[in-house]
Amino acid sequence: MSKLTMSEDLNGFKLIMEYNLQWGDMDAAQHVNNVNYLRWCESARIAYFEMMDMDLSFNNGVGPILGYQDCKYIFPLTFPDTAIIACHTESVLGDRFIMECKVYSKKHERISAISKQSIIPYNYDTLAKSALPSEWRKAIAKIEDQ
Amino acid sequence: MSKLTMSEDLNGFKLIMEYNLQWGDMDAAQHVNNVNYLRWCESARIAYFEMMDMDLSFNNGVGPILGYQDCKYIFPLTFPDTAIIACHTESVLGDRFIMECKVYSKKHERISAISKQSIIPYNYDTLAKSALPSEWRKAIAKIEDQ
Amino acid sequence: MSKLTMSEDLNGFKLIMEYNLQWGDMDAAQHVNNVNYLRWCESARIAYFEMMDMDLSFNNGVGPILGYQDCKYIFPLTFPDTAIIACHTESVLGDRFIMECKVYSKKHERISAISKQSIIPYNYDTLAKSALPSEWRKAIAKIEDQ
Amino acid sequence: MSKLTMSEDLNGFKLIMEYNLQWGDMDAAQHVNNVNYLRWCESARIAYFEMMDMDLSFNNGVGPILGYQDCKYIFPLTFPDTAIIACHTESVLGDRFIMECKVYSKKHERISAISKQSIIPYNYDTLAKSALPSEWRKAIAKIEDQ
Repeated sequence: MSKLTMSEDLNGFKLIMEYNLQWGDMDAAQHVNNVNYLRWCESARIAYFEMMDMDLSFNNGVGPILGYQDCKYIFPLTFPDTAIIACHTESVLGDRFIMECKVYSKKHERISAISKQSIIPYNYDTLAKSALPSEWRKAIAKIEDQ
Repeated sequence: MSKLTMSEDLNGFKLIMEYNLQWGDMDAAQHVNNVNYLRWCESARIAYFEMMDMDLSFNNGVGPILGYQDCKYIFPLTFPDTAIIACHTESVLGDRFIMECKVYSKKHERISAISKQSIIPYNYDTLAKSALPSEWRKAIAKIEDQ
Repeated sequence: MSKLTMSEDLNGFKLIMEYNLQWGDMDAAQHVNNVNYLRWCESARIAYFEMMDMDLSFNNGVGPILGYQDCKYIFPLTFPDTAIIACHTESVLGDRFIMECKVYSKKHERISAISKQSIIPYNYDTLAKSALPSEWRKAIAKIEDQ
Repeated sequence: MSKLTMSEDLNGFKLIMEYNLQWGDMDAAQHVNNVNYLRWCESARIAYFEMMDMDLSFNNGVGPILGYQDCKYIFPLTFPDTAIIACHTESVLGDRFIMECKVYSKKHERISAISKQSIIPYNYDTLAKSALPSEWRKAIAKIEDQ
Protein backbone atom coordinates (compact mmCIF):
# COMPACT_ATOMS: atom_id res chain seq x y z
CA MET A 1 0.00 0.00 0.00
CA SER A 2 1.43 3.40 -0.94
CA LYS A 3 1.64 6.32 1.48
CA LEU A 4 -1.10 8.01 -0.51
CA THR A 5 -3.38 5.01 -0.12
CA MET A 6 -2.94 4.81 3.66
CA SER A 7 -3.76 8.52 3.97
CA GLU A 8 -6.79 8.12 1.71
CA ASP A 9 -7.85 5.11 3.75
CA LEU A 10 -7.71 7.14 6.97
CA ASN A 11 -9.89 9.85 5.45
CA GLY A 12 -13.31 9.97 7.01
CA PHE A 13 -12.25 8.44 10.33
CA LYS A 14 -13.03 10.84 13.18
CA LEU A 15 -10.90 8.96 15.70
CA ILE A 16 -7.29 7.99 15.00
CA MET A 17 -4.87 6.83 17.70
CA GLU A 18 -1.23 5.83 17.70
CA TYR A 19 0.46 3.26 19.88
CA ASN A 20 4.17 2.48 20.11
CA LEU A 21 4.48 -1.30 20.15
CA GLN A 22 6.01 -3.04 23.16
CA TRP A 23 8.58 -5.81 22.69
CA GLY A 24 6.41 -7.93 24.98
CA ASP A 25 3.49 -7.59 22.53
CA MET A 26 5.25 -10.26 20.47
CA ASP A 27 4.78 -13.96 21.15
CA ALA A 28 6.89 -17.09 20.58
CA ALA A 29 6.12 -16.93 16.83
CA GLN A 30 8.00 -13.59 16.87
CA HIS A 31 5.05 -11.46 15.73
CA VAL A 32 2.68 -9.28 17.70
CA ASN A 33 0.22 -11.64 19.37
CA ASN A 34 -3.31 -11.62 17.93
CA VAL A 35 -5.00 -10.45 21.13
CA ASN A 36 -3.06 -7.18 21.22
CA TYR A 37 -4.78 -5.88 18.08
CA LEU A 38 -8.06 -6.18 19.97
CA ARG A 39 -6.57 -4.44 23.01
CA TRP A 40 -5.74 -1.41 20.83
CA CYS A 41 -9.20 -1.44 19.23
CA GLU A 42 -10.61 -1.44 22.77
CA SER A 43 -8.68 1.71 23.70
CA ALA A 44 -9.87 3.40 20.49
CA ARG A 45 -13.43 2.29 21.32
CA ILE A 46 -13.21 3.75 24.84
CA ALA A 47 -11.83 7.03 23.44
CA TYR A 48 -14.79 7.06 21.00
CA PHE A 49 -17.20 6.45 23.90
CA GLU A 50 -15.67 9.45 25.67
CA MET A 51 -16.26 11.58 22.56
CA MET A 52 -19.90 10.43 22.84
CA ASP A 53 -20.00 11.54 26.50
CA MET A 54 -21.06 8.08 27.59
CA ASP A 55 -21.31 7.11 31.26
CA LEU A 56 -18.25 4.86 31.71
CA SER A 57 -18.67 4.15 35.43
CA PHE A 58 -19.70 0.56 34.57
CA ASN A 59 -21.79 0.44 37.72
CA ASN A 60 -24.85 2.64 37.24
CA GLY A 61 -26.91 4.17 34.48
CA VAL A 62 -26.67 2.81 30.93
CA GLY A 63 -23.18 1.80 29.82
CA PRO A 64 -21.68 -0.04 26.85
CA ILE A 65 -20.87 -3.75 26.82
CA LEU A 66 -19.07 -5.67 24.11
CA GLY A 67 -21.43 -8.29 22.71
CA TYR A 68 -19.34 -9.52 19.82
CA GLN A 69 -16.15 -8.78 17.97
CA ASP A 70 -14.18 -10.23 15.12
CA CYS A 71 -10.77 -9.59 13.59
CA LYS A 72 -9.30 -10.28 10.18
CA TYR A 73 -5.49 -10.51 10.31
CA ILE A 74 -3.83 -9.22 7.13
CA PHE A 75 -0.21 -8.25 7.82
CA PRO A 76 1.70 -9.20 10.99
CA LEU A 77 3.33 -6.42 13.03
CA THR A 78 6.73 -6.69 14.72
CA PHE A 79 8.53 -4.56 17.35
CA PRO A 80 9.60 -1.80 16.87
CA ASP A 81 6.74 -0.15 14.99
CA THR A 82 3.85 2.17 15.70
CA ALA A 83 0.28 0.94 15.24
CA ILE A 84 -2.21 3.45 13.84
CA ILE A 85 -5.79 2.63 14.87
CA ALA A 86 -8.73 4.29 13.08
CA CYS A 87 -12.23 3.79 14.35
CA HIS A 88 -15.78 4.73 13.27
CA THR A 89 -19.40 3.62 13.64
CA GLU A 90 -20.53 1.51 10.73
CA SER A 91 -24.22 1.06 11.55
CA VAL A 92 -26.74 1.90 14.27
CA LEU A 93 -29.50 -0.58 15.16
CA GLY A 94 -32.35 -0.51 17.67
CA ASP A 95 -30.48 -2.37 20.40
CA ARG A 96 -26.79 -1.97 19.45
CA PHE A 97 -24.34 -0.23 17.17
CA ILE A 98 -21.51 -1.67 15.11
CA MET A 99 -18.04 -0.14 15.09
CA GLU A 100 -15.20 -0.84 12.69
CA CYS A 101 -11.52 -0.39 13.59
CA LYS A 102 -8.66 -0.54 11.11
CA VAL A 103 -5.10 -1.15 12.31
CA TYR A 104 -2.14 0.04 10.22
CA SER A 105 1.62 -0.37 10.42
CA LYS A 106 3.18 3.10 10.44
CA LYS A 107 6.58 1.67 9.48
CA HIS A 108 5.29 -0.33 6.52
CA GLU A 109 2.43 2.06 5.62
CA ARG A 110 0.00 -0.77 5.11
CA ILE A 111 -3.07 -2.21 6.68
CA SER A 112 -2.51 -4.90 9.29
CA ALA A 113 -5.95 -5.90 10.64
CA ILE A 114 -9.65 -5.02 10.54
CA SER A 115 -12.00 -5.59 13.46
CA LYS A 116 -15.74 -5.10 13.95
CA GLN A 117 -17.38 -4.79 17.34
CA SER A 118 -20.99 -4.89 18.41
CA ILE A 119 -21.72 -2.49 21.28
CA ILE A 120 -24.79 -3.21 23.41
CA PRO A 121 -26.37 -0.74 25.87
CA TYR A 122 -26.65 -2.28 29.32
CA ASN A 123 -28.63 -0.78 32.17
CA TYR A 124 -26.65 -1.23 35.39
CA ASP A 125 -29.65 -0.17 37.50
CA THR A 126 -32.07 -2.79 36.15
CA LEU A 127 -29.26 -5.26 35.28
CA ALA A 128 -30.71 -5.82 31.81
CA LYS A 129 -30.02 -4.89 28.21
CA SER A 130 -31.60 -1.66 27.11
CA ALA A 131 -32.81 -0.07 23.90
CA LEU A 132 -30.24 2.22 22.29
CA PRO A 133 -30.43 5.54 24.22
CA SER A 134 -31.42 8.45 21.97
CA GLU A 135 -28.41 10.43 23.32
CA TRP A 136 -26.11 7.71 21.95
CA ARG A 137 -27.78 7.91 18.55
CA LYS A 138 -27.40 11.70 18.50
CA ALA A 139 -23.79 11.59 19.69
CA ILE A 140 -22.81 9.09 17.00
CA ALA A 141 -24.53 11.18 14.31
CA LYS A 142 -22.73 14.27 15.54
CA ILE A 143 -19.33 12.56 15.39
CA GLU A 144 -19.80 10.82 12.06
CA ASP A 145 -21.51 13.70 10.22
CA GLN A 146 -18.81 16.24 11.03
CA MET B 1 -27.46 -23.79 32.58
CA SER B 2 -27.71 -26.91 34.72
CA LYS B 3 -24.76 -29.12 35.55
CA LEU B 4 -26.22 -31.75 33.28
CA THR B 5 -26.42 -29.31 30.38
CA MET B 6 -22.78 -28.24 30.70
CA SER B 7 -21.64 -31.87 30.68
CA GLU B 8 -23.83 -32.62 27.67
CA ASP B 9 -22.43 -29.55 25.97
CA LEU B 10 -18.87 -30.75 26.53
CA ASN B 11 -19.71 -34.14 25.00
CA GLY B 12 -18.02 -34.64 21.68
CA PHE B 13 -15.14 -32.25 22.34
CA LYS B 14 -11.82 -34.07 22.08
CA LEU B 15 -9.86 -31.25 23.72
CA ILE B 16 -10.90 -29.72 27.02
CA MET B 17 -8.59 -27.47 29.09
CA GLU B 18 -8.94 -25.74 32.42
CA TYR B 19 -7.46 -22.44 33.47
CA ASN B 20 -7.54 -20.84 36.91
CA LEU B 21 -8.34 -17.16 36.36
CA GLN B 22 -5.82 -14.53 37.43
CA TRP B 23 -6.99 -11.44 39.33
CA GLY B 24 -5.14 -9.38 36.71
CA ASP B 25 -7.36 -10.87 33.97
CA MET B 26 -10.02 -8.42 35.15
CA ASP B 27 -10.15 -4.84 33.85
CA ALA B 28 -11.47 -1.56 35.22
CA ALA B 29 -15.06 -2.69 34.54
CA GLN B 30 -14.35 -5.46 37.12
CA HIS B 31 -14.91 -8.36 34.73
CA VAL B 32 -12.41 -10.52 32.87
CA ASN B 33 -11.21 -8.45 29.94
CA ASN B 34 -12.49 -9.55 26.52
CA VAL B 35 -9.04 -10.32 25.08
CA ASN B 36 -8.30 -12.98 27.69
CA TYR B 37 -11.02 -15.29 26.35
CA LEU B 38 -9.13 -15.30 23.06
CA ARG B 39 -5.83 -15.97 24.85
CA TRP B 40 -7.33 -19.14 26.37
CA CYS B 41 -8.76 -20.21 23.01
CA GLU B 42 -5.27 -19.76 21.59
CA SER B 43 -3.73 -22.12 24.16
CA ALA B 44 -6.44 -24.69 23.42
CA ARG B 45 -5.75 -24.24 19.70
CA ILE B 46 -2.01 -24.79 20.18
CA ALA B 47 -2.70 -27.92 22.27
CA TYR B 48 -4.96 -29.12 19.44
CA PHE B 49 -2.18 -28.44 16.91
CA GLU B 50 0.14 -30.56 19.06
CA MET B 51 -2.42 -33.40 19.00
CA MET B 52 -2.26 -33.04 15.18
CA ASP B 53 1.57 -33.32 15.30
CA MET B 54 1.91 -30.02 13.45
CA ASP B 55 5.28 -28.33 12.97
CA LEU B 56 5.12 -25.44 15.44
CA SER B 57 8.60 -24.02 14.82
CA PHE B 58 6.99 -21.03 13.05
CA ASN B 59 10.12 -20.67 10.93
CA ASN B 60 10.26 -23.53 8.45
CA GLY B 61 7.97 -26.06 6.82
CA VAL B 62 4.20 -25.49 6.80
CA GLY B 63 2.78 -24.01 9.98
CA PRO B 64 -0.59 -22.60 11.08
CA ILE B 65 -1.44 -18.90 11.05
CA LEU B 66 -4.57 -17.28 12.40
CA GLY B 67 -6.41 -15.61 9.53
CA TYR B 68 -9.58 -14.61 11.33
CA GLN B 69 -11.33 -15.03 14.63
CA ASP B 70 -14.50 -13.86 16.27
CA CYS B 71 -15.99 -14.06 19.75
CA LYS B 72 -19.50 -13.84 21.08
CA TYR B 73 -19.59 -12.76 24.73
CA ILE B 74 -22.46 -14.33 26.68
CA PHE B 75 -21.70 -14.31 30.41
CA PRO B 76 -18.89 -12.30 32.04
CA LEU B 77 -16.35 -14.12 34.20
CA THR B 78 -14.89 -12.76 37.45
CA PHE B 79 -11.93 -13.81 39.62
CA PRO B 80 -11.84 -16.31 41.30
CA ASP B 81 -13.19 -18.91 38.90
CA THR B 82 -11.89 -21.60 36.57
CA ALA B 83 -12.47 -21.30 32.84
CA ILE B 84 -13.19 -24.54 30.98
CA ILE B 85 -12.25 -24.31 27.31
CA ALA B 86 -13.52 -26.93 24.82
CA CYS B 87 -12.26 -26.94 21.29
CA HIS B 88 -12.98 -28.83 18.05
CA THR B 89 -12.74 -28.50 14.27
CA GLU B 90 -15.99 -27.40 12.75
CA SER B 91 -15.16 -27.61 9.04
CA VAL B 92 -12.23 -28.34 6.74
CA LEU B 93 -11.81 -26.39 3.48
CA GLY B 94 -9.23 -26.55 0.70
CA ASP B 95 -7.05 -23.76 2.07
CA ARG B 96 -8.01 -23.54 5.76
CA PHE B 97 -9.94 -25.16 8.57
CA ILE B 98 -12.37 -23.62 11.02
CA MET B 99 -12.18 -24.30 14.75
CA GLU B 100 -14.79 -23.56 17.40
CA CYS B 101 -13.94 -22.97 21.07
CA LYS B 102 -16.50 -22.74 23.84
CA VAL B 103 -15.59 -21.14 27.16
CA TYR B 104 -17.48 -22.08 30.34
CA SER B 105 -17.50 -20.84 33.91
CA LYS B 106 -16.78 -23.78 36.20
CA LYS B 107 -18.16 -21.90 39.21
CA HIS B 108 -21.44 -20.93 37.54
CA GLU B 109 -21.67 -24.02 35.30
CA ARG B 110 -22.71 -21.96 32.31
CA ILE B 111 -21.37 -20.94 28.98
CA SER B 112 -19.47 -17.67 28.88
CA ALA B 113 -18.22 -17.18 25.31
CA ILE B 114 -18.00 -18.84 21.90
CA SER B 115 -15.18 -18.17 19.45
CA LYS B 116 -14.48 -19.34 15.90
CA GLN B 117 -11.04 -19.24 14.33
CA SER B 118 -9.89 -19.72 10.77
CA ILE B 119 -6.53 -21.51 10.56
CA ILE B 120 -4.51 -21.04 7.38
CA PRO B 121 -1.51 -23.19 6.36
CA TYR B 122 1.52 -21.02 5.70
CA ASN B 123 4.72 -22.24 4.07
CA TYR B 124 7.67 -20.64 5.87
CA ASP B 125 10.07 -21.85 3.16
CA THR B 126 8.25 -20.20 0.22
CA LEU B 127 6.76 -17.41 2.42
CA ALA B 128 3.32 -17.99 0.92
CA LYS B 129 -0.01 -19.53 1.85
CA SER B 130 -0.31 -23.19 1.03
CA ALA B 131 -3.05 -25.68 0.25
CA LEU B 132 -4.20 -27.64 3.30
CA PRO B 133 -1.60 -30.41 3.84
CA SER B 134 -3.11 -33.89 3.54
CA GLU B 135 -1.47 -34.80 6.89
CA TRP B 136 -3.49 -32.02 8.54
CA ARG B 137 -6.70 -33.35 7.01
CA LYS B 138 -5.96 -36.88 8.23
CA ALA B 139 -4.92 -35.70 11.69
CA ILE B 140 -8.13 -33.71 12.11
CA ALA B 141 -10.24 -36.66 10.92
CA LYS B 142 -8.43 -38.94 13.36
CA ILE B 143 -9.08 -36.60 16.31
CA GLU B 144 -12.69 -35.79 15.50
CA ASP B 145 -13.80 -39.31 14.50
CA GLN B 146 -12.54 -40.95 17.67
CA MET C 1 15.58 -30.28 42.58
CA SER C 2 14.12 -33.64 43.58
CA LYS C 3 10.42 -34.20 44.14
CA LEU C 4 11.13 -34.50 47.83
CA THR C 5 12.88 -31.14 47.89
CA MET C 6 10.00 -29.36 46.16
CA SER C 7 7.52 -30.86 48.64
CA GLU C 8 9.74 -29.92 51.53
CA ASP C 9 10.09 -26.45 50.11
CA LEU C 10 6.31 -26.07 49.95
CA ASN C 11 5.98 -27.11 53.59
CA GLY C 12 4.92 -24.25 55.80
CA PHE C 13 3.18 -22.29 53.04
CA LYS C 14 -0.46 -21.74 53.89
CA LEU C 15 -1.41 -20.64 50.39
CA ILE C 16 -0.49 -22.68 47.31
CA MET C 17 -2.06 -22.07 43.88
CA GLU C 18 -1.69 -23.73 40.51
CA TYR C 19 -1.91 -22.12 37.12
CA ASN C 20 -1.86 -23.85 33.73
CA LEU C 21 0.44 -21.77 31.51
CA GLN C 22 -0.95 -20.13 28.39
CA TRP C 23 0.96 -20.34 25.11
CA GLY C 24 0.62 -16.55 24.91
CA ASP C 25 2.54 -16.23 28.20
CA MET C 26 5.69 -16.81 26.15
CA ASP C 27 7.47 -13.99 24.37
CA ALA C 28 9.72 -13.74 21.31
CA ALA C 29 12.60 -15.30 23.28
CA GLN C 30 10.38 -18.42 23.52
CA HIS C 31 10.15 -18.44 27.31
CA VAL C 32 7.41 -17.24 29.63
CA ASN C 33 7.74 -13.46 29.75
CA ASN C 34 9.10 -12.05 33.03
CA VAL C 35 5.98 -10.02 33.86
CA ASN C 36 3.74 -13.10 34.00
CA TYR C 37 5.52 -14.44 37.09
CA LEU C 38 4.45 -11.25 38.86
CA ARG C 39 0.90 -11.62 37.56
CA TRP C 40 0.65 -15.04 39.22
CA CYS C 41 2.18 -13.73 42.46
CA GLU C 42 -0.49 -11.02 42.37
CA SER C 43 -3.31 -13.58 42.18
CA ALA C 44 -1.78 -15.51 45.07
CA ARG C 45 -1.49 -12.24 46.99
CA ILE C 46 -5.16 -11.39 46.38
CA ALA C 47 -6.19 -14.90 47.48
CA TYR C 48 -4.12 -14.37 50.63
CA PHE C 49 -5.85 -11.01 51.22
CA GLU C 50 -9.19 -12.80 50.96
CA MET C 51 -8.04 -15.32 53.59
CA MET C 52 -7.29 -12.24 55.75
CA ASP C 53 -10.85 -10.95 55.16
CA MET C 54 -9.46 -7.66 53.83
CA ASP C 55 -11.72 -5.03 52.25
CA LEU C 56 -10.89 -5.37 48.54
CA SER C 57 -13.33 -2.74 47.22
CA PHE C 58 -10.38 -0.46 46.46
CA ASN C 59 -12.60 2.57 46.97
CA ASN C 60 -13.38 2.90 50.67
CA GLY C 61 -12.03 1.85 54.04
CA VAL C 62 -8.44 0.64 54.34
CA GLY C 63 -7.17 -1.50 51.46
CA PRO C 64 -3.82 -2.89 50.35
CA ILE C 65 -1.56 -1.22 47.81
CA LEU C 66 1.62 -2.59 46.33
CA GLY C 67 4.50 -0.31 47.28
CA TYR C 68 7.39 -2.37 46.01
CA GLN C 69 8.17 -5.75 44.53
CA ASP C 70 11.17 -7.60 43.21
CA CYS C 71 11.72 -10.88 41.41
CA LYS C 72 14.71 -13.15 41.06
CA TYR C 73 14.51 -15.31 37.92
CA ILE C 74 16.08 -18.75 38.39
CA PHE C 75 14.70 -21.19 35.81
CA PRO C 76 12.67 -20.17 32.74
CA LEU C 77 9.24 -21.75 32.20
CA THR C 78 7.85 -22.82 28.83
CA PHE C 79 4.37 -23.81 27.63
CA PRO C 80 2.98 -26.36 28.37
CA ASP C 81 3.61 -26.54 32.10
CA THR C 82 1.81 -25.75 35.33
CA ALA C 83 3.16 -23.06 37.64
CA ILE C 84 2.86 -23.73 41.38
CA ILE C 85 2.81 -20.50 43.40
CA ALA C 86 3.37 -20.59 47.17
CA CYS C 87 2.94 -17.47 49.24
CA HIS C 88 3.43 -16.40 52.84
CA THR C 89 4.09 -13.32 54.99
CA GLU C 90 7.75 -12.89 55.78
CA SER C 91 7.62 -9.94 58.17
CA VAL C 92 5.16 -7.45 59.64
CA LEU C 93 6.18 -3.83 60.22
CA GLY C 94 4.35 -0.80 61.63
CA ASP C 95 3.26 0.56 58.27
CA ARG C 96 3.51 -2.44 55.91
CA PHE C 97 4.04 -6.17 55.66
CA ILE C 98 6.35 -8.14 53.42
CA MET C 99 5.19 -11.18 51.46
CA GLU C 100 7.30 -13.77 49.70
CA CYS C 101 6.08 -15.83 46.75
CA LYS C 102 7.91 -18.79 45.29
CA VAL C 103 7.11 -20.03 41.79
CA TYR C 104 7.81 -23.65 40.80
CA SER C 105 7.65 -25.63 37.58
CA LYS C 106 5.38 -28.63 38.14
CA LYS C 107 6.80 -30.38 35.08
CA HIS C 108 10.43 -29.94 36.07
CA GLU C 109 9.85 -30.05 39.85
CA ARG C 110 12.17 -27.15 40.46
CA ILE C 111 12.03 -23.57 41.59
CA SER C 112 11.63 -20.98 38.86
CA ALA C 113 11.41 -17.58 40.55
CA ILE C 114 11.19 -15.86 43.95
CA SER C 115 9.42 -12.55 44.49
CA LYS C 116 9.00 -10.27 47.49
CA GLN C 117 6.27 -7.68 47.79
CA SER C 118 5.74 -4.83 50.19
CA ILE C 119 2.05 -4.30 51.03
CA ILE C 120 1.02 -0.89 52.34
CA PRO C 121 -2.31 -0.10 54.01
CA TYR C 122 -4.04 2.80 52.23
CA ASN C 123 -7.05 4.63 53.60
CA TYR C 124 -9.43 5.34 50.71
CA ASP C 125 -11.53 7.67 52.89
CA THR C 126 -8.69 10.00 53.89
CA LEU C 127 -6.64 9.28 50.70
CA ALA C 128 -3.51 8.68 52.74
CA LYS C 129 -1.33 5.83 53.92
CA SER C 130 -2.35 4.33 57.22
CA ALA C 131 -0.74 2.46 60.09
CA LEU C 132 -1.09 -1.29 59.79
CA PRO C 133 -4.64 -2.15 61.02
CA SER C 134 -4.61 -4.42 64.06
CA GLU C 135 -7.10 -6.71 62.23
CA TRP C 136 -4.50 -7.27 59.53
CA ARG C 137 -1.86 -8.12 62.11
CA LYS C 138 -4.19 -10.62 63.77
CA ALA C 139 -5.30 -12.14 60.48
CA ILE C 140 -1.70 -12.69 59.36
CA ALA C 141 -0.77 -14.24 62.70
CA LYS C 142 -3.79 -16.54 62.47
CA ILE C 143 -2.82 -17.73 58.97
CA GLU C 144 0.89 -18.14 59.59
CA ASP C 145 0.66 -19.73 63.04
CA GLN C 146 -1.74 -22.48 61.98
CA MET D 1 6.87 17.72 40.66
CA SER D 2 7.13 20.81 38.49
CA LYS D 3 7.65 20.71 34.73
CA LEU D 4 11.15 21.98 35.30
CA THR D 5 11.92 19.17 37.69
CA MET D 6 10.74 16.47 35.30
CA SER D 7 12.91 17.90 32.50
CA GLU D 8 15.88 18.12 34.85
CA ASP D 9 15.22 14.56 35.93
CA LEU D 10 15.28 13.36 32.33
CA ASN D 11 18.62 15.08 31.73
CA GLY D 12 21.43 12.60 31.29
CA PHE D 13 19.23 9.75 30.07
CA LYS D 14 20.32 8.62 26.61
CA LEU D 15 17.17 6.60 25.98
CA ILE D 16 13.69 8.05 26.47
CA MET D 17 10.52 6.38 25.12
CA GLU D 18 6.86 7.30 25.16
CA TYR D 19 3.90 4.98 25.33
CA ASN D 20 0.23 5.88 25.05
CA LEU D 21 -1.58 3.93 27.77
CA GLN D 22 -4.21 1.38 26.81
CA TRP D 23 -7.52 1.26 28.67
CA GLY D 24 -6.89 -2.46 29.18
CA ASP D 25 -3.66 -1.63 31.08
CA MET D 26 -5.92 -0.83 34.04
CA ASP D 27 -7.11 -3.52 36.42
CA ALA D 28 -10.12 -3.95 38.70
CA ALA D 29 -8.65 -1.41 41.15
CA GLN D 30 -9.00 1.14 38.30
CA HIS D 31 -5.30 1.95 38.02
CA VAL D 32 -2.68 0.72 35.59
CA ASN D 33 -1.73 -2.78 36.73
CA ASN D 34 1.71 -3.11 38.34
CA VAL D 35 3.07 -5.54 35.73
CA ASN D 36 2.63 -3.07 32.87
CA TYR D 37 5.29 -0.72 34.26
CA LEU D 38 7.75 -3.60 33.91
CA ARG D 39 6.52 -4.31 30.38
CA TRP D 40 7.42 -0.73 29.38
CA CYS D 41 10.81 -0.95 31.09
CA GLU D 42 11.39 -4.12 29.08
CA SER D 43 10.76 -2.34 25.78
CA ALA D 44 13.11 0.46 26.81
CA ARG D 45 15.68 -2.17 27.79
CA ILE D 46 15.40 -3.90 24.40
CA ALA D 47 15.76 -0.54 22.62
CA TYR D 48 18.88 0.09 24.72
CA PHE D 49 20.23 -3.35 23.77
CA GLU D 50 19.71 -2.42 20.12
CA MET D 51 21.69 0.79 20.67
CA MET D 52 24.43 -1.49 22.04
CA ASP D 53 24.27 -3.63 18.86
CA MET D 54 23.63 -6.75 20.95
CA ASP D 55 22.75 -10.08 19.33
CA LEU D 56 19.04 -10.40 20.12
CA SER D 57 18.41 -13.71 18.34
CA PHE D 58 18.05 -15.41 21.75
CA ASN D 59 19.29 -18.67 20.23
CA ASN D 60 23.00 -18.34 19.48
CA GLY D 61 26.01 -16.29 20.53
CA VAL D 62 25.90 -14.30 23.77
CA GLY D 63 22.57 -12.64 24.56
CA PRO D 64 21.07 -10.82 27.55
CA ILE D 65 18.87 -12.49 30.14
CA LEU D 66 17.01 -10.80 32.97
CA GLY D 67 18.34 -12.14 36.27
CA TYR D 68 16.55 -9.84 38.65
CA GLN D 69 14.33 -6.78 38.67
CA ASP D 70 12.52 -4.66 41.20
CA CYS D 71 10.04 -1.81 41.05
CA LYS D 72 9.09 0.93 43.48
CA TYR D 73 5.57 2.24 42.84
CA ILE D 74 5.21 5.94 43.62
CA PHE D 75 2.22 7.42 41.76
CA PRO D 76 -0.48 5.32 40.05
CA LEU D 77 -1.22 5.96 36.35
CA THR D 78 -4.70 5.94 34.81
CA PHE D 79 -5.95 5.86 31.20
CA PRO D 80 -5.74 8.15 29.25
CA ASP D 81 -2.15 9.28 29.80
CA THR D 82 1.25 8.84 28.18
CA ALA D 83 4.04 7.09 30.06
CA ILE D 84 7.54 8.48 29.59
CA ILE D 85 10.22 5.84 30.22
CA ALA D 86 13.86 6.89 30.71
CA CYS D 87 16.56 4.26 30.93
CA HIS D 88 20.30 4.15 31.63
CA THR D 89 23.04 1.85 32.90
CA GLU D 90 23.78 2.39 36.56
CA SER D 91 26.75 0.09 37.07
CA VAL D 92 28.81 -2.49 35.19
CA LEU D 93 30.12 -5.57 36.99
CA GLY D 94 32.23 -8.52 35.85
CA ASP D 95 29.29 -10.82 35.12
CA ARG D 96 26.33 -8.45 34.73
CA PHE D 97 25.25 -4.83 34.42
CA ILE D 98 22.54 -2.95 36.28
CA MET D 99 20.02 -0.72 34.49
CA GLU D 100 17.68 1.81 36.00
CA CYS D 101 14.38 2.87 34.39
CA LYS D 102 12.24 5.76 35.55
CA VAL D 103 8.58 5.99 34.55
CA TYR D 104 6.82 9.35 34.44
CA SER D 105 3.24 10.48 33.87
CA LYS D 106 3.23 12.96 31.00
CA LYS D 107 -0.19 14.28 32.04
CA HIS D 108 0.73 14.87 35.66
CA GLU D 109 4.42 15.67 35.03
CA ARG D 110 5.57 13.54 37.90
CA ILE D 111 7.44 10.36 38.56
CA SER D 112 5.36 7.21 38.77
CA ALA D 113 7.76 4.30 39.28
CA ILE D 114 11.45 3.36 39.42
CA SER D 115 12.76 -0.05 38.41
CA LYS D 116 16.21 -1.64 38.45
CA GLN D 117 17.15 -4.64 36.37
CA SER D 118 20.15 -6.93 36.45
CA ILE D 119 21.21 -8.06 32.96
CA ILE D 120 23.26 -11.24 32.70
CA PRO D 121 25.19 -12.34 29.60
CA TYR D 122 24.15 -15.85 28.56
CA ASN D 123 25.99 -17.95 26.00
CA TYR D 124 23.39 -19.78 23.88
CA ASP D 125 26.10 -21.97 22.32
CA THR D 126 27.49 -23.35 25.59
CA LEU D 127 24.16 -22.93 27.44
CA ALA D 128 25.90 -21.22 30.36
CA LYS D 129 26.35 -17.79 31.85
CA SER D 130 29.28 -15.85 30.48
CA ALA D 131 31.62 -13.09 31.60
CA LEU D 132 30.53 -9.65 30.43
CA PRO D 133 31.67 -9.35 26.79
CA SER D 134 34.13 -6.50 26.27
CA GLU D 135 31.95 -5.26 23.36
CA TRP D 136 29.10 -4.78 25.82
CA ARG D 137 31.32 -2.83 28.18
CA LYS D 138 32.51 -0.57 25.34
CA ALA D 139 29.00 -0.09 23.95
CA ILE D 140 27.65 0.94 27.35
CA ALA D 141 30.54 3.36 27.88
CA LYS D 142 29.92 4.86 24.43
CA ILE D 143 26.22 5.41 25.15
CA GLU D 144 26.60 6.74 28.69
CA ASP D 145 29.62 8.96 28.06
CA GLN D 146 28.07 10.83 25.15
